[in-house]
Amino acid sequence: MDAKESQFSEYLKQYITPHKLSRIEEVLASRTRYFTVVLEDIYKPHNASAVLRTADCFGIQDVHVIEKANRYKVNPYVTRGAAQWVNIHRYAEPAGSAVSVCFEHLRSQGYQIMATSPRSESLSIQDYFPDRKTALVFGNEHEGVSEEVIKEADGLIHIPMYGFTESFNISVTASIFLYDFLSKLRGRLPEGFFLEESEKQLLRYHWYQEIVKNAQIHRKSFFGSNETPK
Amino acid sequence: MDAKESQFSEYLKQYITPHKLSRIEEVLASRTRYFTVVLEDIYKPHNASAVLRTADCFGIQDVHVIEKANRYKVNPYVTRGAAQWVNIHRYAEPAGSAVSVCFEHLRSQGYQIMATSPRSESLSIQDYFPDRKTALVFGNEHEGVSEEVIKEADGLIHIPMYGFTESFNISVTASIFLYDFLSKLRGRLPEGFFLEESEKQLLRYHWYQEIVKNAQIHRKSFFGSNETPK
Repeated sequence: MDAKESQFSEYLKQYITPHKLSRIEEVLASRTRYFTVVLEDIYKPHNASAVLRTADCFGIQDVHVIEKANRYKVNPYVTRGAAQWVNIHRYAEPAGSAVSVCFEHLRSQGYQIMATSPRSESLSIQDYFPDRKTALVFGNEHEGVSEEVIKEADGLIHIPMYGFTESFNISVTASIFLYDFLSKLRGRLPEGFFLEESEKQLLRYHWYQEIVKNAQIHRKSFFGSNETPK
Repeated sequence: MDAKESQFSEYLKQYITPHKLSRIEEVLASRTRYFTVVLEDIYKPHNASAVLRTADCFGIQDVHVIEKANRYKVNPYVTRGAAQWVNIHRYAEPAGSAVSVCFEHLRSQGYQIMATSPRSESLSIQDYFPDRKTALVFGNEHEGVSEEVIKEADGLIHIPMYGFTESFNISVTASIFLYDFLSKLRGRLPEGFFLEESEKQLLRYHWYQEIVKNAQIHRKSFFGSNETPK
């Protein structure tokens, strides 16, 4: 973010109520990239949208979406606007492997990648202590995570189930994992759990532009007079 | 269950595979009425259905449904058959209060009634230890639980949230509560947590009839010859 953009961010602030500004700071203070969620080719848009909503509620900033057959569309009823506040990273590689690209990206940021799967070699959630950055991969409604994900992930993990139904809904699974991981860290959050100031600044800037009506028009008039003509 | 019914239950067994019979016993061994779920006037059938599915997965046998404006219909895609395995108790009192009738029924069975609500006087899930039979009440998608429920419940409880979105999806909320309560009791389950043998017998009988094809025809031929004509 350059100096001019910082100024524009400050400029936008005047159009936001103090109440809203303090909500933004509150939310920012709880935001984390320590955990993240990866959705592999989710079939029903409302399932993916419900995960976004859950992520926002728990303060998870990033959701990664691997698209193969199914292109993810935000369902506004289910997200209740959560897609505005969560960063969605899409991976679609018609020619290559979207899974590889996504996992490489996550590993470069220090994530351990745990794929959710009911296979027998899968670890119970009860036996996993999330003491490092963890990305949780959720597969689609029919087949779960792909063979490729199972092969490429660092480990498999599952929630024990006791009924006739063999699987939870995806947003339910994601919320239980996130709730569990966050609960386990309560009172002993690792260093680097929350965002750095530079990350917060970027989000503030992004959110201000989401919140202020006609932010694009403000943007044009703000940058316009100072911009070197192209 | 009288002697003849016990015999019929035994009779049905021969039509069920050993694998399925052992699944039934496995599920029965984990079934509980220590926790139960109450849905107050849920608007979207897929939300209520997802709660049934979650209940079955966690071994919760009973779901109570208070119907006012919205009549609950099972959505087979979302329940994945869970409605077959979970007992649904409906309360609809056009002339009186379905909430009262439901709560009275629950109290007669020893439940403490906790309504989920984000109000400021509401207890955080982190501060509630479920060391007694607890019924959790979830309100509808728009208004949450009603004023009547708030007044009549023994307490209010909520899951802390850190995002812009002010609420989780209902099935997400229900699953987090159930997961949390069950986790807190792990390793120290109270007496009476699982079903009694008589309750298991009734469920077995019910499930056998769900599983065996044409159970009603078997029933007629089994009871027919011995029944005193009316």
